[in-house]
Amino acid sequence: MKTTLEIMKETAAVKTSIMTAPTEDKNRILTAMADRLVEAADDILAANALDMADAEGRLSTVMLDRLKLTEARIQGMADGIREVVKLPDPAWQITESHTRADGLEITKTCVPLGVIAIIYESRPNVTSDAAALCIKSGNAVILRSGKDAYRSSAAIVRALRQGCADAGYPEALIGQAEDTSRQSSLDLMNGVGYVDLLIPRGGKGLISTCVENAKVPCIETGTGICHLYIDETADLDMALKIIENAKTSRPSVCNAAEVCLVNRKIAGELLPKMRELLVEKRTAEGKIPVELRLDKTCADIIEGTPAGENDFDTEFLDYILAVRAVDNVDEAIAHISAHSTHHSEAIVTRNDAAADKFVRGIDSAAVYVNASTRFTDGGEFGLGCEMGISTQKLHARGPMGLRELCTYKYVVRGDGHVR
Amino acid sequence: MKTTLEIMKETAAVKTSIMTAPTEDKNRILTAMADRLVEAADDILAANALDMADAEGRLSTVMLDRLKLTEARIQGMADGIREVVKLPDPAWQITESHTRADGLEITKTCVPLGVIAIIYESRPNVTSDAAALCIKSGNAVILRSGKDAYRSSAAIVRALRQGCADAGYPEALIGQAEDTSRQSSLDLMNGVGYVDLLIPRGGKGLISTCVENAKVPCIETGTGICHLYIDETADLDMALKIIENAKTSRPSVCNAAEVCLVNRKIAGELLPKMRELLVEKRTAEGKIPVELRLDKTCADIIEGTPAGENDFDTEFLDYILAVRAVDNVDEAIAHISAHSTHHSEAIVTRNDAAADKFVRGIDSAAVYVNASTRFTDGGEFGLGCEMGISTQKLHARGPMGLRELCTYKYVVRGDGHVR
Repeated sequence: MKTTLEIMKETAAVKTSIMTAPTEDKNRILTAMADRLVEAADDILAANALDMADAEGRLSTVMLDRLKLTEARIQGMADGIREVVKLPDPAWQITESHTRADGLEITKTCVPLGVIAIIYESRPNVTSDAAALCIKSGNAVILRSGKDAYRSSAAIVRALRQGCADAGYPEALIGQAEDTSRQSSLDLMNGVGYVDLLIPRGGKGLISTCVENAKVPCIETGTGICHLYIDETADLDMALKIIENAKTSRPSVCNAAEVCLVNRKIAGELLPKMRELLVEKRTAEGKIPVELRLDKTCADIIEGTPAGENDFDTEFLDYILAVRAVDNVDEAIAHISAHSTHHSEAIVTRNDAAADKFVRGIDSAAVYVNASTRFTDGGEFGLGCEMGISTQKLHARGPMGLRELCTYKYVVRGDGHVR
Repeated sequence: MKTTLEIMKETAAVKTSIMTAPTEDKNRILTAMADRLVEAADDILAANALDMADAEGRLSTVMLDRLKLTEARIQGMADGIREVVKLPDPAWQITESHTRADGLEITKTCVPLGVIAIIYESRPNVTSDAAALCIKSGNAVILRSGKDAYRSSAAIVRALRQGCADAGYPEALIGQAEDTSRQSSLDLMNGVGYVDLLIPRGGKGLISTCVENAKVPCIETGTGICHLYIDETADLDMALKIIENAKTSRPSVCNAAEVCLVNRKIAGELLPKMRELLVEKRTAEGKIPVELRLDKTCADIIEGTPAGENDFDTEFLDYILAVRAVDNVDEAIAHISAHSTHHSEAIVTRNDAAADKFVRGIDSAAVYVNASTRFTDGGEFGLGCEMGISTQKLHARGPMGLRELCTYKYVVRGDGHVR
């Protein structure tokens, strides 16, 4: 087994080849990666069967489903890579340029970061998605899969590396940590000089471990305690439609709403309708009802669970909604400022002044007026793809597409200019 | 004395007022800050006299000069603030926008970061420069001055805070760490939830301590081991002019060249001329000659000091230049990749292919073709001002102006849109 340090060295040693590669070459690599993936389907399924056998009885049904690969899923991964071929290449685009009076030409140019390391959990398809986005943006990549998915991921990586070789590029552009113990994650976090960016993709524990301990640059992704604020002037039908969508269309994802703040003046009218929609109607339809965790004011109006101490600071990722009454938009902003994870928050209102105050005062990656928080997504935002949602403020904020996997440099051309 | 935690809490509590302030208000604050600074000149000079008296005999002449304030220097600080008034305000500019087919309007909007903490050393003028850039970009600021300059800085901060109050804004927008021990720097580095960005400005030790230990986002600034590569096709007169400028026009700054790589094919012709220009001519003119630290090949051609083990990894900030012969542009790129601090590097060449290879292959904030590295500067690059030079790749790279003190958020406006 190679050490993670050896793998970091191998990948860093070849990064310049992909950083400086023309778009045609990167697309040729991606096409070859997709071809090789489909060709290797039998090997990948065999490896996946071993991972599945080991996981059976140990992982939940949901986790087992995430881990399981099929011919169709492998085809889907290959199709995903072919979609990335079609996306515009951000690398080497000139984003700004100016020529000084003395003739010195200064251009701000988008360039790849170098080596991107990705630590993820049990979804083997992340392996090909992440590798494709890194290659297209001109970056080498080191993948560190969770232990449960290691054999599946390793089989996928073998196919992807053959794709690199087919296109005349080094296989080491796609590295994989062979060690699936905690040590390999630590090695990547400490990979100063080898890793230009670390992206953890997974649960809160993984992300906070990386953010707190990484010596290399790290992007904090994912956690979303997303808020809805229903203003006194809100169109209540619109409010109900947005609440239902933000909470129930896919509660397990980070852009789902976890907290609803209701203006006190409309609480008496809105809350019974909200309960009817999220609890009674869903129960009658045989769907999972939403558990409402209510502050005192709301609990005086409708039935529900009394909100506990942590209910306004929890990413439930489930059919649970914390509900609190507030006096006005200022109180809503203050609550969100104190409890938000800076992901996505929405106001429903017909008052432009309240909307503007909310938009200015909320310090999150995405702020919505009269729309569901569920749109915070690279695809929905027009980025074409997504490596994750950044909840930090430096570098990238919100959905990270290809451009967010790049940095920039200033290219300055003169004719003997001195200062 | 207030603790640094108390000061962080005070500043964070009022940050929204400046983050959401219109440009006119920010300019009113800056103008009042400049007025108050001039009015407080006597107080500031008195405080500075105490700092100077304590420093006398303890600090070098250069450091004493950095510490010393005069009426003219205070006027210069006020003029500097008034210059910032004239700069365009990046905050709340929409940088991209698109309306989806379903009518949902998504705008990427430049917004302030929040609270910026700055740890610096003994230049009191950094106090007003940094505060002005933060206020203009919509950020609150916490200043942590070096101990030697503390009384001077505190007097400056008092004047600046009065300016905030004059304009109807909280004085706490400009906070100052009252504790000048190591603890206050640690408190700022650990100020998660209060500090949105930490910028260390000073020597290598300060910067690496912050980068390695900060739990809050931190920008690595400053260290510049800048390289010149003189290609075989270079116009030698141009090469000599650029070498002289990059090395001797201001050797103490981070964009000065420290290493010159010379193509082996022209070393015999170039090196004697370089020595003549940097050593003999400067000596004859009564200027400090440049000490040339030469690799073996170069030492066979001209006289100089044999290069030691660390000479290609040292930011001399002095009249010293390390010189090495290389075979071609590829070897130059390989040397720079191994030794650079990713600040600024230049090639002198008449060969477009070599220039392109260098521009693509060098992974630094600024890459120059036929121009001196000395241009890497916010003012020279047209940013109007500068908070420092970032040598990291995330968020900002190269000179940091007002826009680099901002982040962005997505503002999404719909009409009941759900997904």
